[in-house]
Amino acid sequence: MENLKKQVGIEAAKFVKDGMIVGLGTGSTAKYFVEEIGRRVAEEGLNIVGVTTSNVTFDLAQSLNIPLKSIDEVEYVDLTVDGADEVDPKYNGIKGGGAALLMEKIVATYSNDCIWIVDGSKIVETLGKFPLPVEVVPYGARRLLAKFEDKGYNPKMRLSGDDYLVTDMGHYIIDLHLEKIEDSYALADELDNTVGVVEHGLFNDMISKVIVARETGVEILEK
Amino acid sequence: MENLKKQVGIEAAKFVKDGMIVGLGTGSTAKYFVEEIGRRVAEEGLNIVGVTTSNVTFDLAQSLNIPLKSIDEVEYVDLTVDGADEVDPKYNGIKGGGAALLMEKIVATYSNDCIWIVDGSKIVETLGKFPLPVEVVPYGARRLLAKFEDKGYNPKMRLSGDDYLVTDMGHYIIDLHLEKIEDSYALADELDNTVGVVEHGLFNDMISKVIVARETGVEILEK
Repeated sequence: MENLKKQVGIEAAKFVKDGMIVGLGTGSTAKYFVEEIGRRVAEEGLNIVGVTTSNVTFDLAQSLNIPLKSIDEVEYVDLTVDGADEVDPKYNGIKGGGAALLMEKIVATYSNDCIWIVDGSKIVETLGKFPLPVEVVPYGARRLLAKFEDKGYNPKMRLSGDDYLVTDMGHYIIDLHLEKIEDSYALADELDNTVGVVEHGLFNDMISKVIVARETGVEILEK
Repeated sequence: MENLKKQVGIEAAKFVKDGMIVGLGTGSTAKYFVEEIGRRVAEEGLNIVGVTTSNVTFDLAQSLNIPLKSIDEVEYVDLTVDGADEVDPKYNGIKGGGAALLMEKIVATYSNDCIWIVDGSKIVETLGKFPLPVEVVPYGARRLLAKFEDKGYNPKMRLSGDDYLVTDMGHYIIDLHLEKIEDSYALADELDNTVGVVEHGLFNDMISKVIVARETGVEILEK
């Protein structure tokens, strides 16, 4: 599995060209992409600026001497490469298993192109088996939990040890155990309009390509 | 003016009954409501639980010995009384001049009834003369500012001294100088669907009553 993840990370790095501003994703697969970018910067003199999507990725990229800027210091991002927890046939997906969905979505929003790198197990017919992360304001989080319970969304506060997990941006995460999301656009709209919800892990219409690692080799899915 | 604000604060407190869970608003008018509740608790033995909408109101209410709970410790709020910066003929309004819009909206969301107390200058035909506050995630705030500029929304980062103002929940505020909001529902929906926006100061369909202080006396507007 690790070898497959590494393969797609290296494959995705081939889309990165000199002079690009590159969004650096977060997670166990995106990590290999960041490491490959670091190798190319060091060994090939690749000249790029990275924009990170979490504190963890910032630390990793910095340790690799990748030049970095905040999303607030660039006008746009040329290409972002990130992992995903589920991808459906429309290339919509769920992200946020690593709790970085908010910064990831902010960087993706300002990116001209986004690629996801996943192993084959992440490709699904219908989203929802993977719990959908919802990033929420701490004040009122338990009221939101109750609201989601009333709707039958099987919500669970995400924990870190015995406490609620706090995201890089200071919020909590509620995971919705939905099993099946019939309409990811309708659900995204409902969550966006819910007071106390900062962001959610549904990424609709945000990517152009999925690079999939399978036992049989690397497959590139394109729109 | 201060006397008028005090009058509506006292008038609103008459709607508070023994046993209620009461949302305590924030701002220069709501302050008088909170003080009157404090007086009734001390002098009349009024038995209520207050739920605060900002750190400032929490401190004030605590100093008045009003029993307090967080919104996460109650299942609902019976009645919330708060100020507003503008109110239109549909009783939709703009809030957030005091930077407490997020907590105020969260408490209002879980309230069975909401009353606004304002002086007559806040009653308008069309919303928008008062800058609309938008509470945003710090990461990407300058990208959002640029996006709002492109849309012609005349955005300005709210400052506190020389720095960006940080809200009680750790976010920034961008004030949109719109002058005129043609459709407050459409704008609310657009902002709710904007990545990086945590909440905005448009309060649509959230209140039942407006208590207005005019030079000629107190007027109660009801739906």
